[in-house]
Amino acid sequence: MTIKIMPCRIKWNDAHYNIAMRDFEGVGIMAEELDRRAIELHRKNRGKLEVKSKVDASTREGLSLAYTPGVAAVCNEIVKNPDAVYDLTMKWNSVAVVSDCTRVLGLGNIGPLAGMPVMEGKAVLFKSYANIDAFPICLSCHSADEIVATVKNISPVFGGINLEDIESPKCFSVEERLKKELPIPVFHDDQHGTAVVVLAGLINALKVVGKNKKSARIVVAGAGAAGCAIAKLLVADGFSDVLVCDSKGILSDSEGLAPYKRELARLTNRRGKTGTLADAMQGADALIGLSAPNIISSEMVKSMGASPIIFALSNPVPEIAPELAKKSGVKIFGTARADLPNQVNNVLGFPGIFRGALIVRARQIDERMKLAAAYALAFVVGEKELSRDFVLPFAYDRRVVPAVATAVAKAAMKSNVAGLKKSDAEIRNELGALGLL
Amino acid sequence: MTIKIMPCRIKWNDAHYNIAMRDFEGVGIMAEELDRRAIELHRKNRGKLEVKSKVDASTREGLSLAYTPGVAAVCNEIVKNPDAVYDLTMKWNSVAVVSDCTRVLGLGNIGPLAGMPVMEGKAVLFKSYANIDAFPICLSCHSADEIVATVKNISPVFGGINLEDIESPKCFSVEERLKKELPIPVFHDDQHGTAVVVLAGLINALKVVGKNKKSARIVVAGAGAAGCAIAKLLVADGFSDVLVCDSKGILSDSEGLAPYKRELARLTNRRGKTGTLADAMQGADALIGLSAPNIISSEMVKSMGASPIIFALSNPVPEIAPELAKKSGVKIFGTARADLPNQVNNVLGFPGIFRGALIVRARQIDERMKLAAAYALAFVVGEKELSRDFVLPFAYDRRVVPAVATAVAKAAMKSNVAGLKKSDAEIRNELGALGLL
Repeated sequence: MTIKIMPCRIKWNDAHYNIAMRDFEGVGIMAEELDRRAIELHRKNRGKLEVKSKVDASTREGLSLAYTPGVAAVCNEIVKNPDAVYDLTMKWNSVAVVSDCTRVLGLGNIGPLAGMPVMEGKAVLFKSYANIDAFPICLSCHSADEIVATVKNISPVFGGINLEDIESPKCFSVEERLKKELPIPVFHDDQHGTAVVVLAGLINALKVVGKNKKSARIVVAGAGAAGCAIAKLLVADGFSDVLVCDSKGILSDSEGLAPYKRELARLTNRRGKTGTLADAMQGADALIGLSAPNIISSEMVKSMGASPIIFALSNPVPEIAPELAKKSGVKIFGTARADLPNQVNNVLGFPGIFRGALIVRARQIDERMKLAAAYALAFVVGEKELSRDFVLPFAYDRRVVPAVATAVAKAAMKSNVAGLKKSDAEIRNELGALGLL
Repeated sequence: MTIKIMPCRIKWNDAHYNIAMRDFEGVGIMAEELDRRAIELHRKNRGKLEVKSKVDASTREGLSLAYTPGVAAVCNEIVKNPDAVYDLTMKWNSVAVVSDCTRVLGLGNIGPLAGMPVMEGKAVLFKSYANIDAFPICLSCHSADEIVATVKNISPVFGGINLEDIESPKCFSVEERLKKELPIPVFHDDQHGTAVVVLAGLINALKVVGKNKKSARIVVAGAGAAGCAIAKLLVADGFSDVLVCDSKGILSDSEGLAPYKRELARLTNRRGKTGTLADAMQGADALIGLSAPNIISSEMVKSMGASPIIFALSNPVPEIAPELAKKSGVKIFGTARADLPNQVNNVLGFPGIFRGALIVRARQIDERMKLAAAYALAFVVGEKELSRDFVLPFAYDRRVVPAVATAVAKAAMKSNVAGLKKSDAEIRNELGALGLL
């Protein structure tokens, strides 16, 4: 017996978390069954990743070419020209999935051993979706200094660094420092990957309700890693009215705030508004929640502008229950859950983003590349597909990665952060050679 | 056109390094051709390793089992019981090939980028020979403190650590500290892997010439990583007369020596001998060279005991040219070169040693395990095969890994460093399941 979970376009339902997955032959699958299956899959396969050799080293010839004595000539090529490391080793296609496992899924600080299945899983997604050779690096250290030093020390092997599940505010300084000090892209997916996918969803949602970024009022509930990154990306994209709330209310420029929140307050909140989340939501066009379960009431939704948009991304229990949101008049509702429409899933972002960056050997992933990724992702949903229940492609939509990767690669060249110049045809060829078209 | 390099049992020849490989249809292959082929192989494959997923995450079902939401249940299993990480993740079979690339092959301190092809190659050997998922970790740091800290920080992912091409004496303290501080095997292959293979060769060589370890006089020329480890392993095996020479002569207990050399002098040199390498070699039964090209003269060989054994492992140019050694009366001659008989090749050691350690989840690789590996390796050469030109199996002999792994696993259980108890049948089953029988 296998669990059948098929692509779907279901409408809202009030599925409780205990019915986490629902297939579309009408059979509900209980979370306990899913858990059991997941554990069984991991046990049977003894983990999810393996390392494979692309060459035959089992014969005398193979040994002498892949290893000594032939390999010395390969080393010397790189001594002469360090860039040759991208042509002669795995570096061009390898990404470290680095986590200190202090904020794993909804599970919190579970440590590097227990975090392994997630980081291994992330590496599986890199491979499955973008044919990138990712490797999990679960760290037993926790200070920003140690994380930065360790990642720098192991960086020669990798063409990119994906930071994952590191608690905030530490994640900000870790990423910032690594970005400055490494010549390869460093990307904290919980921040920027989420921001790209949310922005893509918002772009399409605004299309559906006939609003635009110049006038729309956006509220971000939650000033953690993802909330910060989303707010910044919205501002970078030209959204002119963004408010961010933490648990104490609207962030506004005042002395009591943590430095990164104060920076955020200055960047957003151009009207100098103060108050609670409820205050912020009055008249708002969209609410993006990355905070806590059930913090949004029916009244708060009713105080929003016409055709309100809510992305309630707290996981597994969203900021407002889907049924309550619907009853309260929400027009477009997205969550992190796969059993509801409009799933905001990071797998729509990071595989294509890294693929694009690697293809042109980008030194970083800058704002232009993230914005390009978001617009490319939004554009994957064709005009005919676009609806209040379909503002983002499904996670496993094979159109996503080539679209996002191409946009990112081109943006990198425009930003002058690309180490290689490639034509559209060359990008396409490379995507084809990687099996991604 | 392919290079044909076949298994062989050639006799000594005076092949110069420029004729590095020689196939056995009589066609000599020049080193330049080999180099060109090696570079081409690396360029065509864009490196030698890839990371592969063992599960399908390209569908909704796959995603939900390999990643969220199902993976949370897998994490929780490990939270409840940390040892479950060995059943549910790749840790049981993953080894880090760690190097700061300060002493790569004969190329020296070429840095972590140029060292990549070697460490990737080593990982290929782990996979090809022992079905171990090894991953290259080339470090951009060099102090012992930084190396130790970095390896500790990334250790949660790995079931074992293979240290490689780290210069001495730093390699000693790095290994010693990591062994103490990590609960997984840490093994500096340049030391112990070499020592195991040399001991195996010496066991068989002594059989051929009818001598034994209680009375044989052994001289080790070279007090670097490998020389030290060999001397120590010989003493651990019960060799009673071992002298070690560095560039200044025989190591004897005196104050001028570096601490690790003094320790070695105390452990060996029971006769309190002083003098030069030439003095040490007078009457010796075997010389093991891990030092420099052409430091051994015909006279030095002639001063040795009857039927002298020489392993001249300086690479690519040995301590004494093969033809000169032969002319001077050497009975058994081994080198690091694949084009000569009796190749002392580390691939005969580390794959089986790690395989055995991983099978019983050993916490370390101790002296008993190394000795067991050496004897198992020596024993692979059957009585009928054993000759002055065949004291070690060929590198690609498929009998080696199961023999060594089984011996190492059993020795680990005897030493009480094994985390799992396994019967002979269970070890055999596991080797079979891994495709190694």
